[in-house]
Amino acid sequence: MADLIAFGDWGTSRLRLGLYDGDTQLESVEGPGIGGLSASPAETLLGAVASWRARRGLSRVVLAGMAGSRTGVVEAPYVECPAGVDDWVRQTATVTLDGLLVEVAPGVAGIAPSGAPDVMRGEETQVFGAMALYPELAEGDQVFVLPGTHGKWCQARDGRMVRFQTFLTGELFALLSTRSSLLLGADAVENAEHEATGFAHGLERARAGHLLSALFEARSAQLREGRTGAWARGFLSGLTIGTEVAEGAAAFKAERVILIGARALGDRYATALGARQVRNTALGGEVCVLAGLRRLASTQAGCH
Amino acid sequence: MADLIAFGDWGTSRLRLGLYDGDTQLESVEGPGIGGLSASPAETLLGAVASWRARRGLSRVVLAGMAGSRTGVVEAPYVECPAGVDDWVRQTATVTLDGLLVEVAPGVAGIAPSGAPDVMRGEETQVFGAMALYPELAEGDQVFVLPGTHGKWCQARDGRMVRFQTFLTGELFALLSTRSSLLLGADAVENAEHEATGFAHGLERARAGHLLSALFEARSAQLREGRTGAWARGFLSGLTIGTEVAEGAAAFKAERVILIGARALGDRYATALGARQVRNTALGGEVCVLAGLRRLASTQAGCH
Repeated sequence: MADLIAFGDWGTSRLRLGLYDGDTQLESVEGPGIGGLSASPAETLLGAVASWRARRGLSRVVLAGMAGSRTGVVEAPYVECPAGVDDWVRQTATVTLDGLLVEVAPGVAGIAPSGAPDVMRGEETQVFGAMALYPELAEGDQVFVLPGTHGKWCQARDGRMVRFQTFLTGELFALLSTRSSLLLGADAVENAEHEATGFAHGLERARAGHLLSALFEARSAQLREGRTGAWARGFLSGLTIGTEVAEGAAAFKAERVILIGARALGDRYATALGARQVRNTALGGEVCVLAGLRRLASTQAGCH
Repeated sequence: MADLIAFGDWGTSRLRLGLYDGDTQLESVEGPGIGGLSASPAETLLGAVASWRARRGLSRVVLAGMAGSRTGVVEAPYVECPAGVDDWVRQTATVTLDGLLVEVAPGVAGIAPSGAPDVMRGEETQVFGAMALYPELAEGDQVFVLPGTHGKWCQARDGRMVRFQTFLTGELFALLSTRSSLLLGADAVENAEHEATGFAHGLERARAGHLLSALFEARSAQLREGRTGAWARGFLSGLTIGTEVAEGAAAFKAERVILIGARALGDRYATALGARQVRNTALGGEVCVLAGLRRLASTQAGCH
């Protein structure tokens, strides 16, 4: 049972835990995100793994994400850029809860191309995981793109993160498509074809590089051109993703990127990248986060 | 009592009515916007002016704004650009409610510089009102800027609106400052000095023209540089207004604009315009809307 570890990604909106015996996943469980807890993080985590401790004798959990924030299970201070995997592993935060060893990955802090301060928690685990899976990604200059609520573009040089930029794309799309006046009766009907047409039109509008000017078309096209709410939702998705890709590709001077994330969203980014002649190699987000957590766990094991 | 007219601006969020005897305002009243009615628009309007009808014998109301939309008191179809004041007056919608004559200004529809369809309801009354007050604004090329929830930039040539652009600036700022994850405990403390510093920094960031890249700094500056929620709110205001001004000035090639609106918001726009070497002449919004409604009423009077 020496290799029995629970690996987890605990973000703002969701906890995902997998119980592993070496390379084999035995069980998995989901729970609430750090942003929506009814009990303390420690109680929540102990509850989530209680049955694995009782039935399997689990004694070790390795986590990434907001679990390491000030409001998480134990604060793991940010590693400063330029940050290599060794710097990162060295700053792992550790706490023992009722006899359970919990190790939490630190986030990374840096300066964005604009000169603004920037932070990540969780994406660094995917980037280091990708490098662990594909050692050639730890060589030379590489740009990683991680779509999401707070999407990241991250430049690495010889395996060290040197700078990165957070894009509010996912959160902005959610606000605009559910809380704004732009979608008239948009909750009414799903229509994949209308949404795809709107997405393509939004990508096209993003080429001009004037996001704020372009937003109102989501509404005016419904009023004046008979477009549906589904079209408008697709338009907002294409406009925001297309704008992120335009700004990101310019800031990072990227002609080729490593795209890490879930399939459906990744496909939209791949389309937007392709429209700007940026090549991409797509990697699965869950595989990368697991590889990153294993990398962290393998070094930590030597300390105990 | 021949000159007794109630003039009103009935937008999405508020109804403002003034009772006038010629140039003299006798009374005023406020009510709910078209977007938040509990009764029908007709019932709401009749309720708002009931006392003026009973006590003063009011028989005529002239309105601008969302009062003329599909969900308003009577639909006033859009006038198409290029739209002069005569086209606009000619398309006034009229309805008689329980013996009360209600005239509603039509909105204007056009094509934005980007090629997208665009619409306005209410701002045209302010633009035509400004031209009535200052006839030189009805000559040559003029660019009008009307800040707001859905702010407008509008180009007129010899008194005819030729094209305009809606900016979601006000609504976007409201979403970001009250519904997003960007402001950590921002509701806690007002601080005018922090807000002003943040506003200046946001204007500076807007110069780079990458709105989506710049948004996350509102949060990261709180996490990494000890900035307050008030600073972050000011930053978001400066960033969004600065971006509107940059995009608007480029699209309309404007070196001088007529700024129409309320004082506090107008001052922020004036600062943002000045930072980009765009001169402005500021006019009060309420004065302009009243002048526009009078212009409409004076022509309509001949029809009855």
